[in-house]
Amino acid sequence: MVTRIAIAGYGNIGKGVHKSVNKNNELYGDIEVSVILTRRPEDVRRDIVDIPVYGTYVVEEYAQHIADVAILCGGSAEDLPEQGPYFAQFMNTVDSFDTHDDIAKYFKEMDGVSRKNGNISIISTGWDPGTFSLERTLADAFLPGVKARGFYGLGEKGGLSLGHSDAIRCIEGVADARQYTHAIHKAIERVRSGEDLSAGEMHWRECVVVAKEGADQDKITNTITNMPKYFRPYETIVKFVTQEELDKKHSGKYHDGLVIAVGETGDGNKAVIEYKNQWESNPEATANILVAHARAAHKLAREGDSGAKTILDIPAAYFSPRSRDELLKDFM
Amino acid sequence: MVTRIAIAGYGNIGKGVHKSVNKNNELYGDIEVSVILTRRPEDVRRDIVDIPVYGTYVVEEYAQHIADVAILCGGSAEDLPEQGPYFAQFMNTVDSFDTHDDIAKYFKEMDGVSRKNGNISIISTGWDPGTFSLERTLADAFLPGVKARGFYGLGEKGGLSLGHSDAIRCIEGVADARQYTHAIHKAIERVRSGEDLSAGEMHWRECVVVAKEGADQDKITNTITNMPKYFRPYETIVKFVTQEELDKKHSGKYHDGLVIAVGETGDGNKAVIEYKNQWESNPEATANILVAHARAAHKLAREGDSGAKTILDIPAAYFSPRSRDELLKDFM
Repeated sequence: MVTRIAIAGYGNIGKGVHKSVNKNNELYGDIEVSVILTRRPEDVRRDIVDIPVYGTYVVEEYAQHIADVAILCGGSAEDLPEQGPYFAQFMNTVDSFDTHDDIAKYFKEMDGVSRKNGNISIISTGWDPGTFSLERTLADAFLPGVKARGFYGLGEKGGLSLGHSDAIRCIEGVADARQYTHAIHKAIERVRSGEDLSAGEMHWRECVVVAKEGADQDKITNTITNMPKYFRPYETIVKFVTQEELDKKHSGKYHDGLVIAVGETGDGNKAVIEYKNQWESNPEATANILVAHARAAHKLAREGDSGAKTILDIPAAYFSPRSRDELLKDFM
Repeated sequence: MVTRIAIAGYGNIGKGVHKSVNKNNELYGDIEVSVILTRRPEDVRRDIVDIPVYGTYVVEEYAQHIADVAILCGGSAEDLPEQGPYFAQFMNTVDSFDTHDDIAKYFKEMDGVSRKNGNISIISTGWDPGTFSLERTLADAFLPGVKARGFYGLGEKGGLSLGHSDAIRCIEGVADARQYTHAIHKAIERVRSGEDLSAGEMHWRECVVVAKEGADQDKITNTITNMPKYFRPYETIVKFVTQEELDKKHSGKYHDGLVIAVGETGDGNKAVIEYKNQWESNPEATANILVAHARAAHKLAREGDSGAKTILDIPAAYFSPRSRDELLKDFM
């Protein structure tokens, strides 16, 4: 049983998905890229010769023939709100929609479309939302009354946030941008000692922006720092650079993060759970997690299930290429 | 909808389950202790006045009336291999069977009994096996080809292992015992740098034993160090003390652990996942995790499911007292 993957969108995440599926295929042979769907098939065909590359519209007629699951690799600010419900009409989907405050609304919309059409749509996965959501939920269940908190950008250079970079790039007058999230280190110790902090007390945000020729930089800065959810709650620094400088000095894709839950069991016995990850390539990390969810989507669909799901609705065994016997013997 | 819990066995874990259910009840009102089942009801009744305390045998006639889920709080070496299949005939169960090498066999036996009787039996949960099994499985799915490794007893005093202490106490001539597991610290760095080590290269074991009067200490030492799975693969130190000294100096129940997965995404981009927990009371940690699984067992049973499950078969939302809306809004 092979899960055939359509990669929808061939940017950083789409390329990461391609590599990750190939790696899984090499190790387990249970998953393969069957097609790449893009708005610019001619461009992508220049790099890809061994896999069909089509315009996105082909899903309207051929979805079931070309793949079992589409991994949607668009950005959350502009792409996924359209791409998600569009694809969910025709096939099983997995995406990394990461605007936290809009996840409930997006879930409802995706659930309506995918349920009506008998498809599975796994939304909002990656590492946050994604594995960090899972760890927050588990910590809340295993340490009742304890609030798990997340920190991002633990190192000196902070961590590159794809969602926030994407949000800046959508602003009028912006040619390109990178957003680095920085943990406020004293806040990590405050959380470890049990304090409850606001979002703005835990992180600050650094934006490195290339303005289009003639664009109003003050207006761009103002738009960024006042963007609700993304930037307004935080101390935000905006710095303008040339495209050349951005390409030269800001090509790294490192990100990391930490979930901490501090509380107690019984009558005052201290309990601490910490989950940390470090990714030299943030988009490839998201891609790897998306691919495991595509495996799960196909299993759920084969069981006759439909509708929207998150990482919280899926047993770990569904992400795994291992048999039940292997899991019991080697992973328990 | 309230999940009524039968606590089967009222030792350290049973008492921890009691406190944890009460805490959950206070916060969410969705779970309560309805009965304590024990082989020594007269003793337990001296401490417990507000909850019925019965002999274990009452499950044979009254299981469905007294509780929705039994949390089995016996030890893995002698209790659970009998207690598990016995209870699974009559009701839904959750247990912490932790002899890793025998989990596949125990799963099969529990699955046969619980499936035949239309019950759910969640086996082998706690933190290892349990949350650590989950993290190993997730790391394997999200970082294909990377082997996750576990370390225990990170601090100077090591960590108290309940399963290993229990195994020593079952040896002829042993009155009482504590087993401290110690991580070999250089091995943590070796694993972080990508080396694959054997179990014996990663930990050593310290056994503090009270011998019965006239017992042969050399024979006890020999039995411990040659115990397959538990001690033979490790450097093991056995020390004999009086009961008084054990009670005075070894009453702590601290344990901790770390799961590390080090690998790469794409073409050589480094990726690290680490999961750490620290528990001042190891049995209360196990208890807290068992209670969340009891919530899941009841949800699965109400859906008409039956048979044996592990933490790998259960979505995180099933462990949670939160509604779908709360999870989407506050935890994703």
